[in-house]
Amino acid sequence: MPGVYSQGMNKVIEVTELALRDAHQSLMATRMALEDMLPALADLDRAGFWSVECWGGATYDACIRFLNEDPWERLRAFRKGMPNTRLQMLLRGQNLLGYRHYEDGVVDRFVDKAAENGMDVFRVFDALNDLRNLECPIRAVKRTGKHAQGTICYTTSPMHTVESFVDMAGKLIEMGCDSICIKDMAALLKPQPAYDLVKGIKARFGSEIPVHVHVHATTGVTMVSLMKAIEAGADVVDTAISSLSLGPGHNPTESLVEMLEGTGFETRLKKDHLARIRDHFAKIRPKYHAFLSNIVGVDTEIFESQIPGGMISNMESQLKQQGAAHKMKEVLEEVPRVRKVAGFPPLVTPSSQIVGSQAVFNVMMGSYKVLTGEFADLMLGYYGETIGPRDPEVMKLAEDKAKKPLITQRPADLLKPEWQELREAALALPGCQSCDEDVLTYAMFPQVAPQFFLHRKDGPKNVGSDPSPKQAASLSGPVKYSVTFAGKTHDVTVAPL
Amino acid sequence: MPGVYSQGMNKVIEVTELALRDAHQSLMATRMALEDMLPALADLDRAGFWSVECWGGATYDACIRFLNEDPWERLRAFRKGMPNTRLQMLLRGQNLLGYRHYEDGVVDRFVDKAAENGMDVFRVFDALNDLRNLECPIRAVKRTGKHAQGTICYTTSPMHTVESFVDMAGKLIEMGCDSICIKDMAALLKPQPAYDLVKGIKARFGSEIPVHVHVHATTGVTMVSLMKAIEAGADVVDTAISSLSLGPGHNPTESLVEMLEGTGFETRLKKDHLARIRDHFAKIRPKYHAFLSNIVGVDTEIFESQIPGGMISNMESQLKQQGAAHKMKEVLEEVPRVRKVAGFPPLVTPSSQIVGSQAVFNVMMGSYKVLTGEFADLMLGYYGETIGPRDPEVMKLAEDKAKKPLITQRPADLLKPEWQELREAALALPGCQSCDEDVLTYAMFPQVAPQFFLHRKDGPKNVGSDPSPKQAASLSGPVKYSVTFAGKTHDVTVAPL
Repeated sequence: MPGVYSQGMNKVIEVTELALRDAHQSLMATRMALEDMLPALADLDRAGFWSVECWGGATYDACIRFLNEDPWERLRAFRKGMPNTRLQMLLRGQNLLGYRHYEDGVVDRFVDKAAENGMDVFRVFDALNDLRNLECPIRAVKRTGKHAQGTICYTTSPMHTVESFVDMAGKLIEMGCDSICIKDMAALLKPQPAYDLVKGIKARFGSEIPVHVHVHATTGVTMVSLMKAIEAGADVVDTAISSLSLGPGHNPTESLVEMLEGTGFETRLKKDHLARIRDHFAKIRPKYHAFLSNIVGVDTEIFESQIPGGMISNMESQLKQQGAAHKMKEVLEEVPRVRKVAGFPPLVTPSSQIVGSQAVFNVMMGSYKVLTGEFADLMLGYYGETIGPRDPEVMKLAEDKAKKPLITQRPADLLKPEWQELREAALALPGCQSCDEDVLTYAMFPQVAPQFFLHRKDGPKNVGSDPSPKQAASLSGPVKYSVTFAGKTHDVTVAPL
Repeated sequence: MPGVYSQGMNKVIEVTELALRDAHQSLMATRMALEDMLPALADLDRAGFWSVECWGGATYDACIRFLNEDPWERLRAFRKGMPNTRLQMLLRGQNLLGYRHYEDGVVDRFVDKAAENGMDVFRVFDALNDLRNLECPIRAVKRTGKHAQGTICYTTSPMHTVESFVDMAGKLIEMGCDSICIKDMAALLKPQPAYDLVKGIKARFGSEIPVHVHVHATTGVTMVSLMKAIEAGADVVDTAISSLSLGPGHNPTESLVEMLEGTGFETRLKKDHLARIRDHFAKIRPKYHAFLSNIVGVDTEIFESQIPGGMISNMESQLKQQGAAHKMKEVLEEVPRVRKVAGFPPLVTPSSQIVGSQAVFNVMMGSYKVLTGEFADLMLGYYGETIGPRDPEVMKLAEDKAKKPLITQRPADLLKPEWQELREAALALPGCQSCDEDVLTYAMFPQVAPQFFLHRKDGPKNVGSDPSPKQAASLSGPVKYSVTFAGKTHDVTVAPL
């Protein structure tokens, strides 16, 4: 693998390309099929990226739920297609890629299998920034010899300060992380805090500790934040190839390359490869028109509401189902209040969904008249500790509703070893193969896995389609109608001329 | 008018809002009707902008050619609707808002009338950066007591250096300009040159000389360039409200406000007014769907080709008319060669069209087998001097073709007083009123003015439309059909359920 962190006269800024994971997760609901990625792998492998993020996050779920793709097959295809590049994944700490806490033995097995199938860099985060939820997965990654990246979920609140984030970085370093990631999933990281945060980490812990910066583009300020982070000493930044960039996604890779000219920094990316990657995904993107984000341009209201784009569309559909689409504004105003009650968690999967759903219920039914099970768990510590104190009255309501006590220990400490049980349940399913990978699929997605195992043999299903199927259909006739007129029924055929 | 250039602890960065001129010129072919702007004027007037750019550029042409709107009426409406804000226009130097050089008397009258009708700030540029073409209009603006802004058209070439641009700024200051604008019409201004250029001007001529920075967003790097320009001392930057921003347009106003938090700089813009302006244009924008730019996201190839977005679409349509759409790539590669032959002019109206058309002819007919009249004029000095030497062989071809000699004097020095002649010709047209404004309309657009004068009384024509007229029609029924079936004709009514 190519040299890292230095080259020639300029400081080399390394780049993680997001096209294969977060870019399509943010822009097209994680629907891109492997077959639409394969033709770009050779160029991705040769372009000079520090890593290619390509797995984890919502991709595992989307693979088995929508695409009839085995996520492990996908990982192996990436490994084969990009032999010279670090593969990178996003791991939700003790939740792995699912939506609950897993017992440590399951976490160990997941990390082992991911490493064995080709993963190089594990970006590990916890939605509450509760370090106890990161200990086991980071230890597991270290044990495999792979790169363990400890993640700070960036957010803003009266409790969150540059100092508090720098402290967190220190603890991640103590835990043995190979690098620190500042993860700004909602595009809230403004230029000055970006500078201060990177500078603070480098000043306190030495310039050798690699700092990676991940920002979204939604608010229109974060390209500047990348520049300031780089000036402060950031080593690696995340971008997406231009044809899969912007909106709720990320800043364009090619623009980053150009931006640095003359600044004393440079990437080692090769423009000809970038151009081919761009052209490929420019061709692919329209296929996924049905899933494309409605957000174009920028949204600076997020600075007030802190609500990431994906969460807004979720809440909109929840409200519509209840015939209350007109209450959206009230819900948007309720979210920051719910977040305060919950002790100011960052809003990222799964806390974003939990806080968002509770805000919808509060507006629809009255404040905390109904608590979702997940919100009660959040209030009672079952996701971990929050930075701020949680509202004692709502905690009491949660105890009553959930009939569970408040906990203060690491949530996974409550769990008994569960691998054998999961394994037996998985192997009982038709189509489940006797490998740990399948057991993990079942463990993380017990509702979806049975159908997936059953239909896996049918092979991947590409949900992309012709950008204008309706027009095409209306032209392709003939169409037969049964027309009842003046009491008589006739077969009528209508064909285009 | 509010105070300028200072407030409180932070340095105040002033902002020029582009929504009413360059934003819709860049995004929707200058088609926005006055009636779609009027509801936003009260908020624009109170938001705290240093100026609102609202006139000039292509708007005058678009008003009379497409919208049946009197541009002078529009200007007076802006003056009335924004009594507390500087109105700003873009003036193409000795070309005024037309496409040829005008004799100084016409320039004087245009500036007088614009000032009289309410214009405050005249941003004056010449496509070749030939200062001789700026002398008369800047003198005219100074005479009216209005703000004369001297403009540097930013471009890159082997001849263009930071030093050369700083020299030009010095000459503009000597000419009496009240401020200097760095105009980056093709989004070529990267962060470091932005910093160096502003710093260079301030260092050489003192920090008191106000520097305004105008960039487009096309390449995805220029928000960072604004930040670096501000760090170097820029006083005013140009942005567009987010709902009319990005693509080939400009960086979003709201993002600029947010970007500066904690940096030691701040705007004095009021977010509540910005939100209302944004919401208004978010509602209006879809009406102009038929004219919306195809460019979404960013385009970094411009750094190589230097071809602004508007020019690409022009060349595409030229090629299509000749059944040669497949030659686009060759044309894009030819443009920089033509630009070199012509002495490296910046590419901006009209030089962009002149160079682009010649590149099309070169590809279609062979190198310089055919010269357009405008390209011959450019080669022979009839638009002014270029920074680099022009190709002697092609200059010789131009002399032969145009049967005109090379000139080295200021082009307008060749022109005789023409106002009386223009006035007589204008007043002979049906519908032309006996005012200088109408004479100026005729002077600048002799082909379009006659039709406009004739139909002006019909009132403005809004070329916006319902975003989906077809679907709307199909739902709004009932529709009556006459259906002939089995030899008999029936009246059939189809209504939506």
